[in-house]
Amino acid sequence: MTSTTYWLEHSWPGQGEVDSSVLLEVDNGVISKVTRGVQAPPPGSKVLNGLTIPGLANAHSHAFHRALRGRTEGRGASTTTFWDWRDQMYEVAGSLNPDLLHRLARATFAEMAQAGITLVGEFHYVHHDVDGSEYSNPNAMGEALLAAARDAGVRFTLLDVCYLHGGLGPDGYDEPSPIQRRFADSDADAWTRRVAALKPSETVRVGAAVHSVRAVDPSSVTTVARWADQRAVPLHAHLSEQEAENEQCLAAHGATPTQVLFDSGAVNDRFTAVHGTHLSVIDLATLGGAGATVCLCPTTERDLADGIGQAGAMVAAGAALAVGTDSQSVIDLFEESRAIELDERLRVRQRGHHSPTALLTAATAAGYESLGWGKGGNLDVGSLADLTNLSLDSPRLAGQRVSDLLAGAVFAATASDVQHVMVAGEMIVSDGHHTRVDVAAELREALQ
Amino acid sequence: MTSTTYWLEHSWPGQGEVDSSVLLEVDNGVISKVTRGVQAPPPGSKVLNGLTIPGLANAHSHAFHRALRGRTEGRGASTTTFWDWRDQMYEVAGSLNPDLLHRLARATFAEMAQAGITLVGEFHYVHHDVDGSEYSNPNAMGEALLAAARDAGVRFTLLDVCYLHGGLGPDGYDEPSPIQRRFADSDADAWTRRVAALKPSETVRVGAAVHSVRAVDPSSVTTVARWADQRAVPLHAHLSEQEAENEQCLAAHGATPTQVLFDSGAVNDRFTAVHGTHLSVIDLATLGGAGATVCLCPTTERDLADGIGQAGAMVAAGAALAVGTDSQSVIDLFEESRAIELDERLRVRQRGHHSPTALLTAATAAGYESLGWGKGGNLDVGSLADLTNLSLDSPRLAGQRVSDLLAGAVFAATASDVQHVMVAGEMIVSDGHHTRVDVAAELREALQ
Repeated sequence: MTSTTYWLEHSWPGQGEVDSSVLLEVDNGVISKVTRGVQAPPPGSKVLNGLTIPGLANAHSHAFHRALRGRTEGRGASTTTFWDWRDQMYEVAGSLNPDLLHRLARATFAEMAQAGITLVGEFHYVHHDVDGSEYSNPNAMGEALLAAARDAGVRFTLLDVCYLHGGLGPDGYDEPSPIQRRFADSDADAWTRRVAALKPSETVRVGAAVHSVRAVDPSSVTTVARWADQRAVPLHAHLSEQEAENEQCLAAHGATPTQVLFDSGAVNDRFTAVHGTHLSVIDLATLGGAGATVCLCPTTERDLADGIGQAGAMVAAGAALAVGTDSQSVIDLFEESRAIELDERLRVRQRGHHSPTALLTAATAAGYESLGWGKGGNLDVGSLADLTNLSLDSPRLAGQRVSDLLAGAVFAATASDVQHVMVAGEMIVSDGHHTRVDVAAELREALQ
Repeated sequence: MTSTTYWLEHSWPGQGEVDSSVLLEVDNGVISKVTRGVQAPPPGSKVLNGLTIPGLANAHSHAFHRALRGRTEGRGASTTTFWDWRDQMYEVAGSLNPDLLHRLARATFAEMAQAGITLVGEFHYVHHDVDGSEYSNPNAMGEALLAAARDAGVRFTLLDVCYLHGGLGPDGYDEPSPIQRRFADSDADAWTRRVAALKPSETVRVGAAVHSVRAVDPSSVTTVARWADQRAVPLHAHLSEQEAENEQCLAAHGATPTQVLFDSGAVNDRFTAVHGTHLSVIDLATLGGAGATVCLCPTTERDLADGIGQAGAMVAAGAALAVGTDSQSVIDLFEESRAIELDERLRVRQRGHHSPTALLTAATAAGYESLGWGKGGNLDVGSLADLTNLSLDSPRLAGQRVSDLLAGAVFAATASDVQHVMVAGEMIVSDGHHTRVDVAAELREALQ
């Protein structure tokens, strides 16, 4: 790839204020030079009008949940709890095969790209065939996701999930149910052997995950955590999304899920807790003290009636915040970011907990860090050339003063305001359209 | 206006299920004929692909708040409360004049039209000149709003607000502050005289409002309520948005704001309580028993840290729900509608309180009824020809099954998915663009 120069009308480099008239040079997928105060686009440069920000990182995705959009609402009493919703989600999980997963994920990742998402962390646990047996290629499903990400042009971290047990009862761990057998490796060592065969590439990395303390026992958590430590890759886990998980874990282990993960060696600065909706003061101190990340998924947490996590207390304790689209009921990281602040306002009846800069950092640099791409999430020299450009011609942002542009973007922009998206120096979305994928057509085909 | 025929690919007529292949005839701004099961568009008919629903009603708008978007966020401790925010809002109110209000409202109402809003209820209280004196035309500001609505093509109810006092202390009502003098008529009789000069037209009606029990004493509430009763027009009031209002009212009157309004004769089936975030069980029974409407403004209630009202209990008590964009931080009635359900899920940790049909009814028929247009909000013969058409080509709705289309629209659509909007038989938005107003250009000009 040769050097290309972009002139940015307005840009936010990942910290501080919005700047205007910045020249960005990109070589081999990396930002090689930044020049400020270039009042007019030089000849040969490409002009990006509007507001350019570092690419958005979706730190928690289950691509196949996209098939559930609009299908779990409005059935009244039959879907009143998270656990009822999970039954419906399991039905979709049961219908997948590598080809369908590839098509669904390709369309969904392309939808994400159009929403300005340049990096996806896929929390992947549907590993095996319907009866629980291995596919002839044991990573057929994971590789379907890698191919989908490459097709859609997004940077990608496959968080391959260790999932061993069906649930946590007072007497210990249950066997996987018939549908859960697709998710389960025989033990944590089998997980490490399978995952060893997954191959990273320039824009794809492999990280680790434990599904939750419901599905992985402490000793197996330790096996997965050591694997991640040895490779210095991210480790993610669902954590305390529902109070029932806390109660089950306390009954079985005499400790909270956070404490179980900590005691198993999982919690450090490469660890990301997903949700963390129901954390104790000690849990918060444990995560914050370790420099862990908490990935909030507010539109999913609204949808699944999880409750509102203590985002302000997480930050005060020392944790970083990232965001994820999770169940894909909405794919819009602007909505997720502002929801961190807005839902906290509903909870504590005060405004002003998180600055627009902090909220946008959660959706950019913190997500890149959480997914093992520390050189992303900003527009500095040496950073990954991943960026998202917003139009200022939509009614949502037109007329916003430059001094209020960042707040306007965080509190009013939507996915539909994204006009150009670059990953590793390549434009994957141009003028609001994906350059390779007909998103609507592929969604229709995959969702039949 | 002559008869025009529209063929609707998919449509939701305001109740029941989504239907496909419906022919709609429109004469003189009214739906004159509906034919179901017309498989192909007849020659001469206009085709509306996608999903067509009754036009959306924005039951609570302050047009001038549009200038605040992105300007009250991120200043940290200086804007931590509703009352701090109000100071910033007062700054904008202090800068208005009839010409600026007209330009700002025209652009804002056109933004609303592009978001699928066909009817706006404007809660208007900036009546007078900066020093509190009457303009030479005492309704110069109200007429600026009427002109803006006509320019933008939206149906309109001007809810002219009676605002008399600066606040409610333990010893009674305070004088208006210097900035509040713009809002205040000398007494309720002066309000009735001024309002009598406002002229309705085919698409414009005039209704009444009392700002709140903070700004209007009980005897003046009675004067305004009688005026509305005699004309059978809507009466709206801000109600219990903040707990401080409840406390002040209890201290001064020994009764809740709802009870004060009820005892003053304001609460009946033409009454709409705006917000109702902090209501007692008796308040809920009072509003529900009277068949009143509660207008929820969830994105504003998030923004202003108001808290989450008991929407399910309101419905159970017999109240109707409507929605409003209020402070214009977001102009998207799909987001407002789903937030009724989603924020209730956060509050009570269960799903399934309000069906998609109920949520969309809040944004359509219930809003029309609240604003005094009982013949709107559905696609039946004899109804107002106001409708909103959504594209199914955006990634948000592409591939949605017809059986799940209503749930998909309510839980995933955004304002940007609106492609055509009709008011009184006239297309005011076509292919996503306003037919008369360059919305972005006018917003830029008005927001300078």
